[in-house]
Amino acid sequence: MTGQPVATRIVLASRPSGRPVAANFRLERETVPDIAEGEVLLQTLYLSLDPYMRGRMDDAKSYAKPVEIGDVMEGGTVARVVGSRNTAFKTGDTVLSHSGWQSYAISDGTNLRKLDPETAPITTALGILGMPGFTAYAGLRNIGKPKAGETLVVAAASGAVGSAVGQMAKIYGARVVGIAGGPKKCEYLCKELGFDAAIDHHSNDFPAELAAACPSGIDVYFENVGGHVWNAVFPLLNDFARIPVCGLIAHYNEGSSVLSGRDQLPAAMRAILRKSLTIRGFIQREFADQRPDFYHQVGAWISEGRLKYKEDIVDGLENAPEAFLGLLEGKNFGKLIVRVAS
Amino acid sequence: MTGQPVATRIVLASRPSGRPVAANFRLERETVPDIAEGEVLLQTLYLSLDPYMRGRMDDAKSYAKPVEIGDVMEGGTVARVVGSRNTAFKTGDTVLSHSGWQSYAISDGTNLRKLDPETAPITTALGILGMPGFTAYAGLRNIGKPKAGETLVVAAASGAVGSAVGQMAKIYGARVVGIAGGPKKCEYLCKELGFDAAIDHHSNDFPAELAAACPSGIDVYFENVGGHVWNAVFPLLNDFARIPVCGLIAHYNEGSSVLSGRDQLPAAMRAILRKSLTIRGFIQREFADQRPDFYHQVGAWISEGRLKYKEDIVDGLENAPEAFLGLLEGKNFGKLIVRVAS
Repeated sequence: MTGQPVATRIVLASRPSGRPVAANFRLERETVPDIAEGEVLLQTLYLSLDPYMRGRMDDAKSYAKPVEIGDVMEGGTVARVVGSRNTAFKTGDTVLSHSGWQSYAISDGTNLRKLDPETAPITTALGILGMPGFTAYAGLRNIGKPKAGETLVVAAASGAVGSAVGQMAKIYGARVVGIAGGPKKCEYLCKELGFDAAIDHHSNDFPAELAAACPSGIDVYFENVGGHVWNAVFPLLNDFARIPVCGLIAHYNEGSSVLSGRDQLPAAMRAILRKSLTIRGFIQREFADQRPDFYHQVGAWISEGRLKYKEDIVDGLENAPEAFLGLLEGKNFGKLIVRVAS
Repeated sequence: MTGQPVATRIVLASRPSGRPVAANFRLERETVPDIAEGEVLLQTLYLSLDPYMRGRMDDAKSYAKPVEIGDVMEGGTVARVVGSRNTAFKTGDTVLSHSGWQSYAISDGTNLRKLDPETAPITTALGILGMPGFTAYAGLRNIGKPKAGETLVVAAASGAVGSAVGQMAKIYGARVVGIAGGPKKCEYLCKELGFDAAIDHHSNDFPAELAAACPSGIDVYFENVGGHVWNAVFPLLNDFARIPVCGLIAHYNEGSSVLSGRDQLPAAMRAILRKSLTIRGFIQREFADQRPDFYHQVGAWISEGRLKYKEDIVDGLENAPEAFLGLLEGKNFGKLIVRVAS
């Protein structure tokens, strides 16, 4: 009666049209298969939920392949090795993997990174010491390049990427203005993370409040949302401003065209020309050779207490879809992680 | 009855609304004043006409101050020193100056650069060895960075900047596709300048012809026009494409907003993100410290016959307004220069 463990997994049931709904996901169960020579069996401990996953649900051309209908949703995970026929891993090892939204996964060992639970809490491998933290680090180091005295603005500022961007920019000597949804998040940015100002984008006077918080204009805008935040930021950009673009969460649910009375592209292009702006889209893996620097530097900043992080942990894989839908609306507060097993 | 020479000058009579017209300019005459200690009197030989001058006619915020109503139109010039009370210059010297649309000017010697007529024809200081050539050089070296085997597209390709961009990109080993208005210019690009392909943007099938000429997509788009050329280029951009933006001649006559049924900015931002695009506005003087390299390198390419240039010379300062209006509509063929005196 011992038998194989039963795995649960969440697959893409259908592609969303616009805003995703719970019915786009389906929970499935199956018996965990045996592992072959060279393979390891991974039990997922934590699953990272990130805005980029919205893009994978569409069939559109992107920098990564879409998830196919019926396939397990993609995602970064922290997992425990519970069976191994691979000499590089032994039962009990904790690893960073990309197992997706499922409780068990089989791996041949490629792209697994062993984690040392003594060095840092293992969940940080999904946040400040993982993809979101490296997105912040690489975007600032290679594109944003904030200088002492400059003003940096970041939206979704209490999220995994935004909070890292703002704190790193403070370390580099910039004045940092965060944009977030609601007074609680704004208070957290100023009181806990040391931002110079925080603006609630739900405010009726949001553009005016942002302008007041940026009396010398904006030198770096770390773009991860788009939409009405971009509209408020755009007129405040200084000559030679840099705009790393790592996400556009406000647009993820749009179709391929947006009806509007006004085409804003010509004005944007004119500003790019007149102000010598740099706009640069990126994904962190382009800068993979800088990861050793990142682990070293950011690890040091964390242990010196100069970088803080906040996690928003949801229990149970079955709750991942609802948590993910909330993420797209800014309902999380901190890095959103699903505890799949403990 | 010898007296002082009479100077003619063209001033901004009124600001255009949309497309400029002849009535926006006024020709004035005045007696050339005496020069004071430290000054030189310059007689303009050649005046450069360039698209950026359209921007100076507006009152809008830009990287340079607008020309005020009643002031002489701005412009680069090649001039002869015809009187000097400045020890650094003697009568008969030929200099590059920024005297504007006038036949005589007084200078205290700052920002004058002596030209050696033995080294290169003096008109090249306004074109291939001047601001347009340096715009091409700096935009490619710092932003476009074409690599061997990549595809570069440039519009206004028979113009001063475009023809230099395309030829330099060929030297760097790229496949070069030029966009120009009319079969004569297109033939010139392929037969005289060695472009791999040239597309007439007046063609009804322009987007399809451009796509056919770029079977491997576009890695560098040197943007100097905007408008419908951008729309055709945009879907062909490859991942990691670079877009130096040095001009937007198609938009110079637009107001601050463009009515349209569709806002193209969100799609542009999504492409920037998905394709990791770099869009970077610039003006050449940002890279002024690279000018010595430029004079050396481009001078060598010209004498080796690897860089060719074409000039479109109009006689008489009084014809500058009409020539300039034609430039905005692509009527020139080659670098547009006004011969003010010989």
